Amino acid sequence: MISSRIIQNLVEQFARLPNIGPKSAQRLTFYLLNRPREELKNLEAAIEQARTKIQRCQTCFNFSESDPCPICANPVRNSETICLIAKPQDIAAIEKSGSFKGRYYLIGETPLEEKDFQNPRIAKLLKKIKTEKISEVILAFSPDIGGETSLLYLAKLLKQFPNLSITRPARGLPMGADLEYADEVTLENAFQRRQKI
Amino acid sequence: MISSRIIQNLVEQFARLPNIGPKSAQRLTFYLLNRPREELKNLEAAIEQARTKIQRCQTCFNFSESDPCPICANPVRNSETICLIAKPQDIAAIEKSGSFKGRYYLIGETPLEEKDFQNPRIAKLLKKIKTEKISEVILAFSPDIGGETSLLYLAKLLKQFPNLSITRPARGLPMGADLEYADEVTLENAFQRRQKI
Repeated sequence: MISSRIIQNLVEQFARLPNIGPKSAQRLTFYLLNRPREELKNLEAAIEQARTKIQRCQTCFNFSESDPCPICANPVRNSETICLIAKPQDIAAIEKSGSFKGRYYLIGETPLEEKDFQNPRIAKLLKKIKTEKISEVILAFSPDIGGETSLLYLAKLLKQFPNLSITRPARGLPMGADLEYADEVTLENAFQRRQKI
Repeated sequence: MISSRIIQNLVEQFARLPNIGPKSAQRLTFYLLNRPREELKNLEAAIEQARTKIQRCQTCFNFSESDPCPICANPVRNSETICLIAKPQDIAAIEKSGSFKGRYYLIGETPLEEKDFQNPRIAKLLKKIKTEKISEVILAFSPDIGGETSLLYLAKLLKQFPNLSITRPARGLPMGADLEYADEVTLENAFQRRQKI
């Protein structure tokens, strides 16, 4: 029981955030109250900037300060290859790896299923493939139930374009894995698609 | 790799908070960007209110909108019994239980040790006991290493007041505990201080 309405309100605001329970929200609140006022001001300013300056790129639907975003606006990047991803964090991870030089398309959280046929981002993607010069679509979803469902559905949908190459990132043993502890599906993928050395 | 400096800044601000790693900070940031702008504004306002309106009560050192805080200012509460606690969350928990009707004193994070003899809150506490009518001090620290160290140190220090009753909350089996899984110290406390039925 916190007697201050202001403190209680901040606890409640934090408790709305994902993976922050009531105890964590209290801890965050009292942590901040203990910090120099300057730090609270910086946090406020950071949220305000995000609120007022960040929009969605209308080409790839990622969050950006500009529309189109720097990736979609970059003429050096290959515009014929589109990488479909579920969430902005995935773009951050792929960009960090430097392993992809095409364009992204944030299709939205998985699973995407047949019942989503009115999903405007799917409609826009189909139109994009019809009207622009797109040679490959990479379905880069996390290999979990939601990701696999979305992959099957979209692959089926994209089969209507006979010249389009539909791919997915390779599955297999991740770097640093211990064979002994690898799950059966991962091992099956790794052995079925074994690579020549 | 996030190309927007504004998004990256918000991620970094979140990552400074306790128990929020870089991945959680990204998740929080993109979660907020996905929410209606109104919610971000509410979070900003909650932090701003806390920053500008919350101070420390100069009697008990808890955070409050007023000085003295509502608990210290409440004439109905027993001012002869002081409950020493380590952090504001502990006051919230005790108040929620309704099990204490005296005053609190936020002595600060444990462990408190002999080397802390210049701790101004300890000096102020001793002065308080000398000058005000205090009959009991409850050392309500969590029963962990830090709490027990602080308890031993403060109990020794408070022995200089022969008429002062120095107590601690009872230790024993918590409600809902399974005897089989109780640790040795808890069981020892529970059996040594067994209660008549």
